Parts: sequence; C-alpha cells; structure tokens
Amino acid sequence: MAATPLLDELRAALGESAVLTDPDLLRMHQRDEADLCAAGTPLVVVRPRDTGEVVATVRAAARHGVPVVPQGARTGLAGAANAVDGALVLSTVAMTEIREIDPVARIAVVQPGVVNATLAGAVAEQGLYYPPDPGSWESSTIGGNVATNAGGMCCVKYGVTSEYVLGLEVVLGSGEVLRTGRRTAKGVAGYDLTRLFVGSEGTLGVITEVTVALRPAPEESLTLVAVFGSTTAAGTAVARIAAQGLTPSLLELLDRTHLRAIEAYRPMGLRTDAEALLLAAADTGPRAADDLARLAGLCTAAGADEVYTATDAVEAAALLQARRLAYPAMEQLAARTYPDGSGGLILDDVAVPRGALARMLDGVARIAVECDVPIGVVGHAGDGNLHPIMVVDRADPASVARGRRAFDEIMRLGLALGGTCTGEHGVGLLKREWLAREIGPVGVRVHQAIKSALDPANLLNPGKVL
Amino acid sequence: MAATPLLDELRAALGESAVLTDPDLLRMHQRDEADLCAAGTPLVVVRPRDTGEVVATVRAAARHGVPVVPQGARTGLAGAANAVDGALVLSTVAMTEIREIDPVARIAVVQPGVVNATLAGAVAEQGLYYPPDPGSWESSTIGGNVATNAGGMCCVKYGVTSEYVLGLEVVLGSGEVLRTGRRTAKGVAGYDLTRLFVGSEGTLGVITEVTVALRPAPEESLTLVAVFGSTTAAGTAVARIAAQGLTPSLLELLDRTHLRAIEAYRPMGLRTDAEALLLAAADTGPRAADDLARLAGLCTAAGADEVYTATDAVEAAALLQARRLAYPAMEQLAARTYPDGSGGLILDDVAVPRGALARMLDGVARIAVECDVPIGVVGHAGDGNLHPIMVVDRADPASVARGRRAFDEIMRLGLALGGTCTGEHGVGLLKREWLAREIGPVGVRVHQAIKSALDPANLLNPGKVL
Repeated sequence: MAATPLLDELRAALGESAVLTDPDLLRMHQRDEADLCAAGTPLVVVRPRDTGEVVATVRAAARHGVPVVPQGARTGLAGAANAVDGALVLSTVAMTEIREIDPVARIAVVQPGVVNATLAGAVAEQGLYYPPDPGSWESSTIGGNVATNAGGMCCVKYGVTSEYVLGLEVVLGSGEVLRTGRRTAKGVAGYDLTRLFVGSEGTLGVITEVTVALRPAPEESLTLVAVFGSTTAAGTAVARIAAQGLTPSLLELLDRTHLRAIEAYRPMGLRTDAEALLLAAADTGPRAADDLARLAGLCTAAGADEVYTATDAVEAAALLQARRLAYPAMEQLAARTYPDGSGGLILDDVAVPRGALARMLDGVARIAVECDVPIGVVGHAGDGNLHPIMVVDRADPASVARGRRAFDEIMRLGLALGGTCTGEHGVGLLKREWLAREIGPVGVRVHQAIKSALDPANLLNPGKVL
Repeated sequence: MAATPLLDELRAALGESAVLTDPDLLRMHQRDEADLCAAGTPLVVVRPRDTGEVVATVRAAARHGVPVVPQGARTGLAGAANAVDGALVLSTVAMTEIREIDPVARIAVVQPGVVNATLAGAVAEQGLYYPPDPGSWESSTIGGNVATNAGGMCCVKYGVTSEYVLGLEVVLGSGEVLRTGRRTAKGVAGYDLTRLFVGSEGTLGVITEVTVALRPAPEESLTLVAVFGSTTAAGTAVARIAAQGLTPSLLELLDRTHLRAIEAYRPMGLRTDAEALLLAAADTGPRAADDLARLAGLCTAAGADEVYTATDAVEAAALLQARRLAYPAMEQLAARTYPDGSGGLILDDVAVPRGALARMLDGVARIAVECDVPIGVVGHAGDGNLHPIMVVDRADPASVARGRRAFDEIMRLGLALGGTCTGEHGVGLLKREWLAREIGPVGVRVHQAIKSALDPANLLNPGKVL
C-alpha cells in the first residue's frame, strides 16, 4: 500500500476503504468517455461519503499542493473528468443520498453521486418529473450532470440541467463550504452563484449537494417519424415547426448513416433508403393529436416522403429506443468497418440557431467529402444541437487526422453560422481552443479572473475549460 | 454650464446633448422608487446612444476615478439605481433600438433602454411572447429588468427575467466590451457569465445589448377569484394547488387591507369583508376550463367562501387590473390615513417555499400587531413571493421606526422559514445586511472576490449589493 504524508492524512480522515491506490483502480479513473483528450495517472482516488469528508479531502490536497480532479460516473464527453499525473481524483460516487423530495415546493435535495435515473424514478413515484435526460442518464450522476450542465432529448421543451438547479452546496478550493441559491420558486438575492458553478466542470468547487426544481409529471406523449430524401429538407421542417410556434416535447434527427447503423445493430424496420429521419413527440394532453397532425403537415410540406404516427405507447417507445441506440450502433459500425479492432469514433457537439440548421447539415455533408471521412449526424434538431460523428481508423494517424480536421471544420462552420462550440457536452480538454475563439480575448480574461478569484491556488481541475 | 476635465471629455465624445448637468435633472436622477435608501447628488447624468458611447463614458469616468451608477427608468424598489454624491449616472434610456426579432430562433436582440411593454408589443405582432411582466412593465426598461432580474405575475408559470436572457453585451469597468452567451437554444460553452451579470445590479458591468428568448404567443386565459375568510386558508389553497401538480398562469393574493384600498381607490365590487382573495388563471387552451374547475375545487376545499369565474375576457382583464392597482391604491390609503401628506409606504419583498406560505401570512399578521403598524399583503402567491406593505407616517420617526422594525421582522421570519430576503426586487442598498445574513460569510467573501475580479477599481455602482 502506497504511503505518503497526503495518503496517511486521507486514510486517517476518511478511513482506508475510501482511499484507493490500487494501480488498476487508478487506471480505471484516468478518464471519461471523451475522444482526443489526454489523461494522466492519479496518485489516489478518494471516495468521500459526505460534505465533511470532501472538506477534509480538499484541505489535505491543498496542504500538499496536489491538484483535485472531481469525478462522477466518468460518462462525460469532453475530458473534463480526466486525471492529470499525480492528481487526487475526488469521486462523488459514494455520495448517493436523496435527502428530500417535497411535492409542494416541487424540489428535491440530493447528494451529487445520485444517478440521474435513480432521481427521476424516485420523483416519478410522487407524481413529479425531473426532466434533464442526457444519453447517459442510466449511469451518470446528478453531480456530473450539474458540473457539465448536461442536456438531453427533453431540452427542446423542458430545457437543460441548469434550468432545474435552484441551489448548491459547494466545497471551495480553500475547503470552505459555500451554499448558493435557495429552496424557493423565486429569488434574486445577490449574484447568481448557482449558475456560475453549474457547467463549470469542477474548476471552481466540488459540488456536495444539489437542490433541484421538479415539474408535475408530464402526460403521455404521441410520437411520429417523418422520413426525408434530404437532410436539408429535414432542417427546413425544423425551422418551420419553430416558426409556427409549435414546441414538441421531442424533436430528434437521425441521418442515413445512423439509420443504417441502427438497422444493422438492431433491425427494427427503419427506412435505410432515407437521407434523414425526424422523430417528434407531443405531450400536450387533449391537444396532442392536433399538435402531432400539425407537425406531420409541416414535415410533409417541407418535403417528407412519408410521415408515420406511432399507434401506441409500445411503438413510440421502440422509436425512442432506436434513437437511444444511435451511439452503440455507430460503435458497432466502426468495429465492422475496421475488423482488426482499430475502428473508433470522434464525437462532436455543435449548436446553431434553428434557422441555420439546414445550412449546418449541408455543411457537415460537404466537410465529410472534403475531409474524406465518414460522418454520421444525429442530434437534438429542435434545439439546433447536432452531434456529427466521425468514423476513423485509430491505427492510421492519417485517418485520425482527417477526423480531427473534420471536427475542427465543423466547429468553424458552427461559429460562422452564429452557433456555439458546445451545445451540451461541455469544454473540458476537448474544446478549450474553440471556447477561446468563441468568447474572444475579453471573455477569456473574465473567465481567468473568475477562476483566480475563486481558486487562487489553481487546485481544482487545473487545465480544464481554460 | 459646469466644466471639469471629465465633463469636457464627455461632451467632446458624446456631444453636449448627452451630458446633463442641470441641477433639476441631477436631482431627478438621484434615486429609484425604493424607500429607506440613501441617495446622493450626481455630478453628471450621461445618456449614451450606443455601445461606443458607453465605452467612452466608462473610460472617462475611470480616468478621473468617478464612480459610475447605471440607471434605467428608475422604477427599481431596492435603491440599486440610487446615485452617490459626485457620481456619473449612466442612463441607458436613449438606447432604445430593437435590433432584431427572429421568429425561428425565437429571440430578440435589443438595446437596454427599450421599455418592457415596447418589446412585449413588438414581439406580439409576430405571434411571440416575452413573458417577464414586472409591475413597472409599462415604463421599466429591459436593461433595468435584466440588471435587477425582474419578476412579475407571469413567473408562476413562465419564470423570471433571467430565464429569458440568452446573451449580453456588457461594458466592463475597464471599458472593455464583453459578449456573453449565445443566440442558440442550447449552449454550455464556458462559465455562465450571462447569468452572473443578470441581477448584478450594475455592479459588474454596464449592459449595452440583450439577447432574449421568446415563447410562442400564449393562449387566451380563463380567470377565477376565490374569496377566503382567512389568509391561512388562502395559503393552504396555494400549497394544495402546487401539490396537485397544477401550474396556473397566474396565482396572486390580495389581503383585506388591499381589497379595501383598491375598492376605495376604484370601486369594482370586490368583497371587502373577505380576509384574502386569490386570483388565478389558466392558459392551457382546450383544458383551461378543466384546470380552472380543479383550481376552484381546491380553493373551496381549502375553505374559500366563494369562487367566481370570470365570464369573459373583459371581466378577466378587470380582475387583473384590480391586482395591478394594488400599489397606487395603497398609496392613496396612506394619503387618506395621513391627510397632511406625511403618509408613506414601506414595501417589502420576501419569498418562502410554497409550503410555508400560510405560516408566512400568519407571521406577517402577528408582526403587524407586535410592531403596531398596519401591514397589507399582496403578492405572487403561487411562487411563495409576498410583498408586505407597511403604512407609516413619514413625519413621525417613531412610526417609521415601527415600519422599519416590521420590515426586519418579516425578513427574519422569511429566512427562518427557508425563504429568501428578496423574491424579485433585489438587494440594492435596501437589503445588503439581509443578503449577508442569507448567504453567510463564505457567500459574502465569494461575492467580494467576484466583484474585485471584475471591477478591481470598484468603479461600478459602488456600495450596492455588498
């Protein structure tokens, strides 16, 4: 068992079982699920169980000048949870208490290690709804969701994680415990520190408790699919849906690459001859059928070849499941394309104003040709948020370079169209340069000033975001 | 005409007409509408027309070490816009351009001096909706609404100003121009600087452009009033409405003091024998009648003596107008109570978790007795956000002291019930001590660190919030 003064202090404060130094465990905690990001080997992984143990951990790390890298379930896609060599990884996975669910205030209070699906299920039992539903929702934690401001498919109607965070408890780099926000529906007392910490990717503090707002349970939704002969037509349909004042509860896009990959992965009769498919839902109760008919009409007018309405909840769930299989299906496609096991995916994340969606889709197709790399596109079309996915041969540096070039070209195009370099995956290590381009030198200076003000020792997740 | 090097520079940069030094105008710009707050006499009032002129103004003030106090329409209720002696008041009222309304992206881009009602009207013409509706909406500016994170009656369903601010252009104390946020529906690039500036009351920067999110136009709403024999019963009704998962588009409370004041101010047949009235609306289209019936049933079950549904839009508008007359009616009541003209009002603002609303209402009644001061209560009951209003004799220091004591007791009770010292009016000068109590010493230190990081010279609105 490794022994250093820091490890001794941690073991004394938290007990042996919370302080992991086994080399296999250290390797397991090196990185999240991001591509293209460097990761070091931590000195130690610490699993505190409560706020006091987080304070003890951060204070010990600060005394020894060892950087602290907060981690949740490591499902992130930007490298924000990646370790640096010699760091202390502070894993919140042992902080799993749901402390309170209050149906009148419509809030829940949870420790950061509670899994999204666990919270969603617990509040559903009381007729309530926690909307944020990132693709990782069955394994990712609320703490990680808050630190990355996770999105999902519900966002087109219900918004991203930040819209549901009312208050936080945060351990600062000094070891001080800060409480932000409130339990009330409304409140404007002081600077909005809650929102400052949401999405700050562990660079400003370690989140130890989250107060989330809940909604009444949504009604059952009706679902349709619209099949298009061009991605441009699908993008046009999305713009028209927005312009008509419709707000579907789901509006997702799958391109042909994805349709074929999903159909190969798990055959379900998807139209693999189509160029794009839109999946839409309405959960507006007595008017859902009308809303769905309007959505169908707008898709047809925009050039859909076929519009098909799910006849029951089972069929609707199957369509949603097809969408949720997009990423594993693409992983299988990469494995089939490179049978020697060298196939890999580079996942991008870009958001543009809805009116620019069709141009963004055209541009990605052009980039695929120019960069000579297969790119599939899936995404939250209703938000203008796309995930282009490059299929590359990891054994071939030229292939990876082509994928990386496509990634950069997509970022460039997204910004040129008035978009942002990340709709929901975050900056982490992956997009630091693109963040700097997006926010400009004044924005970078303000970010640095805030980071220095809150974490002058640069103890917390150094090198991320900035 | 006064002449100092600063004034000369301002006149050279902005022209004479934008640089006001007339003593009457200086007096007019001393304060907003808050009670109990000190205000000094500015050296100059500057009315820039564009961002470049704001930059020139801030840089000139910085060179001469003259504090800058940003002002909108001065309708604020916490003294955040009050001048200090010798300050430069930077009024944004000449920055009135609506630069863009985009129905597909559902955004508008405006200069800060655009009046709320002007924006609301302009977007309504395109079938869109800008929800935030502070009581001052016919005169207050978007810049002021953003700087104070203004609320209103719509918030119970549609949220406060911050939920509609996607991006900002801000002139920092250094004179640098910062752009925050985005035009996209979704985005998580970097720290949420947009939300940091929203509600920061001019202490971190001067807002020069706002990108707001819009919603589709709401549907016509149905309205009811429920009359209660006790405020506690009204508070119970609100808690039950929330617990049942209902989200009315309006849920306002008026107590007997207000009902009588409004009826005296403009007779409209309100039940002045009631202890409290709830005004509720549903804008849920085909299900609005059902929702209203459920609201009515819950009010009756909670003890309402009478529930009355408006039969048409004209009647509904009249009920809403009664609510909007609450404050002028109370002003008239103060004038009638003290015919020598010394009557005044001390307006408070507190928000508690909905489940604590009945206890808060009981507590305010007890405080009125204990402090021997008449207190009327009006508020956004659905948010747990109340405005207790103390009627005092400004010519009698003992009366003002009783009002001030009641104000403090209300703050104390609000915090004890898990609430916040300001639901929507802000901190300004009025609630600095209460903010410090609410956020604690760590919270105060973090606020100070952020203020120092962004405005190291303490040039911008010094003495406010902190």
